[in-house]
Amino acid sequence: MGFAKIDIDRKKRRGFSEAIYCPGKQPDHIARIIAELLSHKQDVVLTKLDQETCTYLQRSFPELRYNRIARLGYLGHRRKISKGNVVVVSAGTADLPIAEEAVTTLEVMGNRVVKLYDVGVAGVHRLMTKITLLQKARVIIVVAGMEGALASLVSGLVPCPVIAVPTSCGYGASFGGLSALLTMLNSCSPGVAVVNIDNGFGAGYLASLINK
Amino acid sequence: MGFAKIDIDRKKRRGFSEAIYCPGKQPDHIARIIAELLSHKQDVVLTKLDQETCTYLQRSFPELRYNRIARLGYLGHRRKISKGNVVVVSAGTADLPIAEEAVTTLEVMGNRVVKLYDVGVAGVHRLMTKITLLQKARVIIVVAGMEGALASLVSGLVPCPVIAVPTSCGYGASFGGLSALLTMLNSCSPGVAVVNIDNGFGAGYLASLINK
Amino acid sequence: MGFAKIDIDRKKRRGFSEAIYCPGKQPDHIARIIAELLSHKQDVVLTKLDQETCTYLQRSFPELRYNRIARLGYLGHRRKISKGNVVVVSAGTADLPIAEEAVTTLEVMGNRVVKLYDVGVAGVHRLMTKITLLQKARVIIVVAGMEGALASLVSGLVPCPVIAVPTSCGYGASFGGLSALLTMLNSCSPGVAVVNIDNGFGAGYLASLINK
Amino acid sequence: MGFAKIDIDRKKRRGFSEAIYCPGKQPDHIARIIAELLSHKQDVVLTKLDQETCTYLQRSFPELRYNRIARLGYLGHRRKISKGNVVVVSAGTADLPIAEEAVTTLEVMGNRVVKLYDVGVAGVHRLMTKITLLQKARVIIVVAGMEGALASLVSGLVPCPVIAVPTSCGYGASFGGLSALLTMLNSCSPGVAVVNIDNGFGAGYLASLINK
Amino acid sequence: MGFAKIDIDRKKRRGFSEAIYCPGKQPDHIARIIAELLSHKQDVVLTKLDQETCTYLQRSFPELRYNRIARLGYLGHRRKISKGNVVVVSAGTADLPIAEEAVTTLEVMGNRVVKLYDVGVAGVHRLMTKITLLQKARVIIVVAGMEGALASLVSGLVPCPVIAVPTSCGYGASFGGLSALLTMLNSCSPGVAVVNIDNGFGAGYLASLINK
Amino acid sequence: MGFAKIDIDRKKRRGFSEAIYCPGKQPDHIARIIAELLSHKQDVVLTKLDQETCTYLQRSFPELRYNRIARLGYLGHRRKISKGNVVVVSAGTADLPIAEEAVTTLEVMGNRVVKLYDVGVAGVHRLMTKITLLQKARVIIVVAGMEGALASLVSGLVPCPVIAVPTSCGYGASFGGLSALLTMLNSCSPGVAVVNIDNGFGAGYLASLINK
Amino acid sequence: MGFAKIDIDRKKRRGFSEAIYCPGKQPDHIARIIAELLSHKQDVVLTKLDQETCTYLQRSFPELRYNRIARLGYLGHRRKISKGNVVVVSAGTADLPIAEEAVTTLEVMGNRVVKLYDVGVAGVHRLMTKITLLQKARVIIVVAGMEGALASLVSGLVPCPVIAVPTSCGYGASFGGLSALLTMLNSCSPGVAVVNIDNGFGAGYLASLINK
Amino acid sequence: MGFAKIDIDRKKRRGFSEAIYCPGKQPDHIARIIAELLSHKQDVVLTKLDQETCTYLQRSFPELRYNRIARLGYLGHRRKISKGNVVVVSAGTADLPIAEEAVTTLEVMGNRVVKLYDVGVAGVHRLMTKITLLQKARVIIVVAGMEGALASLVSGLVPCPVIAVPTSCGYGASFGGLSALLTMLNSCSPGVAVVNIDNGFGAGYLASLINK
Repeated sequence: MGFAKIDIDRKKRRGFSEAIYCPGKQPDHIARIIAELLSHKQDVVLTKLDQETCTYLQRSFPELRYNRIARLGYLGHRRKISKGNVVVVSAGTADLPIAEEAVTTLEVMGNRVVKLYDVGVAGVHRLMTKITLLQKARVIIVVAGMEGALASLVSGLVPCPVIAVPTSCGYGASFGGLSALLTMLNSCSPGVAVVNIDNGFGAGYLASLINK
Repeated sequence: MGFAKIDIDRKKRRGFSEAIYCPGKQPDHIARIIAELLSHKQDVVLTKLDQETCTYLQRSFPELRYNRIARLGYLGHRRKISKGNVVVVSAGTADLPIAEEAVTTLEVMGNRVVKLYDVGVAGVHRLMTKITLLQKARVIIVVAGMEGALASLVSGLVPCPVIAVPTSCGYGASFGGLSALLTMLNSCSPGVAVVNIDNGFGAGYLASLINK
Repeated sequence: MGFAKIDIDRKKRRGFSEAIYCPGKQPDHIARIIAELLSHKQDVVLTKLDQETCTYLQRSFPELRYNRIARLGYLGHRRKISKGNVVVVSAGTADLPIAEEAVTTLEVMGNRVVKLYDVGVAGVHRLMTKITLLQKARVIIVVAGMEGALASLVSGLVPCPVIAVPTSCGYGASFGGLSALLTMLNSCSPGVAVVNIDNGFGAGYLASLINK
Repeated sequence: MGFAKIDIDRKKRRGFSEAIYCPGKQPDHIARIIAELLSHKQDVVLTKLDQETCTYLQRSFPELRYNRIARLGYLGHRRKISKGNVVVVSAGTADLPIAEEAVTTLEVMGNRVVKLYDVGVAGVHRLMTKITLLQKARVIIVVAGMEGALASLVSGLVPCPVIAVPTSCGYGASFGGLSALLTMLNSCSPGVAVVNIDNGFGAGYLASLINK
Repeated sequence: MGFAKIDIDRKKRRGFSEAIYCPGKQPDHIARIIAELLSHKQDVVLTKLDQETCTYLQRSFPELRYNRIARLGYLGHRRKISKGNVVVVSAGTADLPIAEEAVTTLEVMGNRVVKLYDVGVAGVHRLMTKITLLQKARVIIVVAGMEGALASLVSGLVPCPVIAVPTSCGYGASFGGLSALLTMLNSCSPGVAVVNIDNGFGAGYLASLINK
Repeated sequence: MGFAKIDIDRKKRRGFSEAIYCPGKQPDHIARIIAELLSHKQDVVLTKLDQETCTYLQRSFPELRYNRIARLGYLGHRRKISKGNVVVVSAGTADLPIAEEAVTTLEVMGNRVVKLYDVGVAGVHRLMTKITLLQKARVIIVVAGMEGALASLVSGLVPCPVIAVPTSCGYGASFGGLSALLTMLNSCSPGVAVVNIDNGFGAGYLASLINK
Repeated sequence: MGFAKIDIDRKKRRGFSEAIYCPGKQPDHIARIIAELLSHKQDVVLTKLDQETCTYLQRSFPELRYNRIARLGYLGHRRKISKGNVVVVSAGTADLPIAEEAVTTLEVMGNRVVKLYDVGVAGVHRLMTKITLLQKARVIIVVAGMEGALASLVSGLVPCPVIAVPTSCGYGASFGGLSALLTMLNSCSPGVAVVNIDNGFGAGYLASLINK
Repeated sequence: MGFAKIDIDRKKRRGFSEAIYCPGKQPDHIARIIAELLSHKQDVVLTKLDQETCTYLQRSFPELRYNRIARLGYLGHRRKISKGNVVVVSAGTADLPIAEEAVTTLEVMGNRVVKLYDVGVAGVHRLMTKITLLQKARVIIVVAGMEGALASLVSGLVPCPVIAVPTSCGYGASFGGLSALLTMLNSCSPGVAVVNIDNGFGAGYLASLINK
């Protein structure tokens, strides 16, 4: 395919197939990439996939599954479930799409996931009652927009790695997620690392690598 | 004085005299401004005053008092102590200079102050044991650098106003305090307002206005 | 509710119920949060609520009131009116939506409000004729976009706290409100604190805390 | 001279000789440029000239005059004094160096200058008592750091052009003068234009062109 | 009017009536402001006025004139034409709307205008053949987006003031006009001052003040 | 034409006619510029041309050719093909439009082009198998968004110049292409230069100048 | 201690004692914190510790060890060595201090470390010959300044998590490490997370959590 | 060497040896890298080398040559001089260090160089008299700080490639070279590419690749 060179070797080299970032790609190009992946017995994950393109693709690939809130499509064999728990924590209800993107990625990659949503720092007691659950996790993902303070707080309570996902949720001086991003990078609690704004897929992927 | 026009009316109009921001001013200019203020029976507060200039000024004004850590000089009558408590909370030991600047400003303006230092979010239990103290405050100042997450957390626990002071403490992506500033502006907990980076004086001044 | 954990304790802890920031939330989620709040006898405030979602919600909650300009919805018992005056000052007519958001928040929280609109620094005499009114306020909110110079000016005239709200009103080098935000943070007049760009709700909330 | 091509034609073409921006130039290069200018009967203005380099240059050019606060050196014939007044207004005492740079530039270029220093918006009555003086100006330069609000205020009072000079005076979110710069660019009062941060020379030069 | 306080005194104080910046204002509010201005015999200028709102307003004010490209509406007595020439120079055809905004403002304020469009630095000979025209101007406005280099070049050729208007024309690293803005602020040619990005009105207004 | 001054001399002076940047220009203005260019026997290249405007123009100029993905229109004589190869490398399928813009520009200017698409650093072996092809190029264009790491990598493998084109492909902290732009500017491999974000035309044009 | 509240519980809660960030803290404060930690049988790690302060501290704590390049001090029992390998990769020799900070942190926390220094993308074959070593790692830390492209490249070759550390090494448009930071956040290769600029300690700490 | 892996293959692969960027490297490390390079018969180029380190190195390598203004050290065989001319143009005298860095790099790599210094746009006639010289160049380097307008202007006059080098020369809103960088990236004249701020070495290196 002139427009794309599928990295067929990736599943073997990295343990998981190449994912397809959909924005900016033409629907028919995506369809041809899917066909190519399937012909090489790779799994398929489509990120930031909008409803319209999904509908188009499902005509050719009716088995394509879709998490509408997460805007994630996937297709392929389920994996064996790994032993450890991954806890996905979100600060607010508006962070749901990115939290769900992480959760679905984790599930597709064969992880056991526990969700803990809407426990932002404005009412910290909601989090404090869940400390035991948090302390039993093998790895935790924290999804937060606006000020993004939740990642440090969670990290300070647990002995496991924390992956922080800033979201673009907010307005004014949140500057499209920049505020949460900087907060998380400057965490005073060691044990936190950060992925790109709104990158729920990347967080789930990394958590899966750690969990295996 | 050609270089300065003292706002002699300010004490009457605003309840407190004009403070002098020292950086960029020549020591002899500062000395002449102090003399002018004293001749009009105004109080004197000197902010961001370095040790060397202070020593120079104390030769002419031996009664000038100086908080070296806060870099704040002051001179004049103590005021009546107001009723309410102002609690000054700091996230880390490196935020001490700015926290002390707020505390000294509050004391000079006649407020009762309680200090709660080094209770950052990396070990949140240090804060949680002080909730009663926090809930009795009339106004709280939160001083924090790096990620600046403490202001939201404190605000979520109390019914009083919180003034947040970002500090330039940190490195890399703290960008001289920008990270903490944005965090505080994007607080998901209503009841927080923010002053300039490292502006302990402004926070103390405002808290005093609220407390009166 | 999986997607949200209502902070039912907040009214008792902080004196006012949790407000709901609407953007990014699904209308049916908002409806379920309202129902949950009402079942616990909490007040309801919905910020940045668009007309369409409001209409949807009013089908289930016909008593939901709506300030269209402020994009604020609310529902619940009126409070006792507090004694002090809060003055809400705006620089220009285009700042109206944010000024109204602050005013409605203040009224819902039981404050007496005086409006002083369109008194920007380009014609400063409009403000100077209102000095007596300003000086009698318990707290003042200043709403301004573009250069945001009004907050310092007002603060210099009065003995009470000033809460500054930068707005995204402007173009070019206003950079979505950044210009007004920086102006207000750098106020040479002590006694000013700043909330997020376009955060009329937060300013009103904080003013109410100060006024009580 | 390999390192410099003097624009000898500039005095004829533009009405004033080329000025020399000193930082980054080697002292002996500056000396040779001065000699070249003098040999072509041009005037000499040296901007941002530090004391040490000035002392070096005065060994070769004892008639070189120096305003130490403004860091401006000059040498050459005084011009005829033009009719109109230029008023140079500064917000605070720390803006003095840049205000003086503008004043000296104006005087070297043959303008009548009135100084109005330390009349920032925190005590606006200091400015209001000078309205008659301001309204008689042919052009006004406003020099201000921190929030830079003074330019709009002055412009709103007068029928003449206002040139705004942001200064790097301030700390924290002043970001080296960015705050004042943005404020001035977003002036809600038409009739204001802005020069570079700390560019007192450029403001004086432009005011002189307008005044002629 | 609760939403607006017309600055009726402005024409007397500043020589020209208050202009109305239209974005963010409701059409009926604009109409009431116009009526108020007319009842006090003020001129009317409406900036950044879109076609739809204009059509709405012309129903009530049929004499309202409109420059569609400049998005400028105006209404009132023509002034006496001043003696000096104002030359409006633009770098490219895409800068036309802002250049026209300046031109129409100048004409409404009674200035004689010469247009010199599409003479950007990529083909500098187009400008060099017009040097005589430029040198006879009393004041020059230079409108340029992208790199914004034209202002320095023009200024270096003439003895009169140059007002530079950066435009948001461009893409990528033009960052909405930031690139042209910085270029113009850093002009190595003294005699240049800058207004806000896309502020053709402000440039025309200031040029008129200089020209009178 | 009042709105445009065609640089008719450019083909002679620079070897290629003036290209027309379409956004912000009115379709009838573009049509008149094309007619003017053709009447002077210049070639025509239209950049960032949308489909709708193209259709409008093809009514008058049916021979106008259009690369829809590249959004590039052109019209005129084909040139002699130069000897050297230009290789255009892209990191991902979403960078296709900008890569195609470079390719079409190169072909219109008479260059032999080899395409190497979708060989980003996440699967570097795709690039490593093409080293011989890369090492035979006279000049290479690398088109990449997101992190933009490909340019350094390619440059480190070859003895020829590399022109790097950052694209706005990405989300979150890609900040509209800023991330890729900074990466490319900071290349640790000498021999790389950078053009504006999404400027495939400029890269193709420069590569053609180098190749001749 | 008024200035600090040691988090004595942290070792139990998180598996490792509180580390002390030294800049901005007074040497005698640091000494008292160390004494407090030791009295509670905690380990001691001092980050960004300069030589002078270290010498001061070693007078009281002669057993304090110091990695001068890493600017890291530590004191306490060695831990059991964990099974997995952590590979620390650096792009250039100037990144050495941060790479060493990560390495020493890992060793103090009981990890087996393999160093792979100076294998930046300008000569990618240096990295490609080490693929087997990389593929056997349990977790990899990549330290890189300037363009920071190395993290994506490494991640694309391996099945384990990659922690990316941007450094402030570089000049001009590296903007103090911002360029490398953005590159790493926008990695097109999933499995990468990022810590603060120059935060070698945080990277080592997190890698240790993953490795256990 | 543990701290460095010399890319011995680079001269063969790329036509020129690896250059050493000196800041952040320890002098004895640099000395050992030089020795390693010489033992493999590579040329040596040291960039951003300060006088003190140079003196240290010359004790071991007395044949090391040094351009003090350019801060460039080099050592090795002169190459054959290539046929084409490279013209290095600078805007002002303060840009000299970077211009000289480019010139020395070009000479070390065997190019014939013509210098054209101090021909900035404030006096454009200085450039216009050299058009013939410019038009005969094979490639041109333009070095400029402040507004950086010179690159577009030069490019518009010539048929050859232009490499633009922004410098950090300037103050205030030049933001350490950002202004010139953006100007050059947004050049309206095609045929310009940009290297990092102050990267005279990179510009010279690239020009040499083009010239061969």
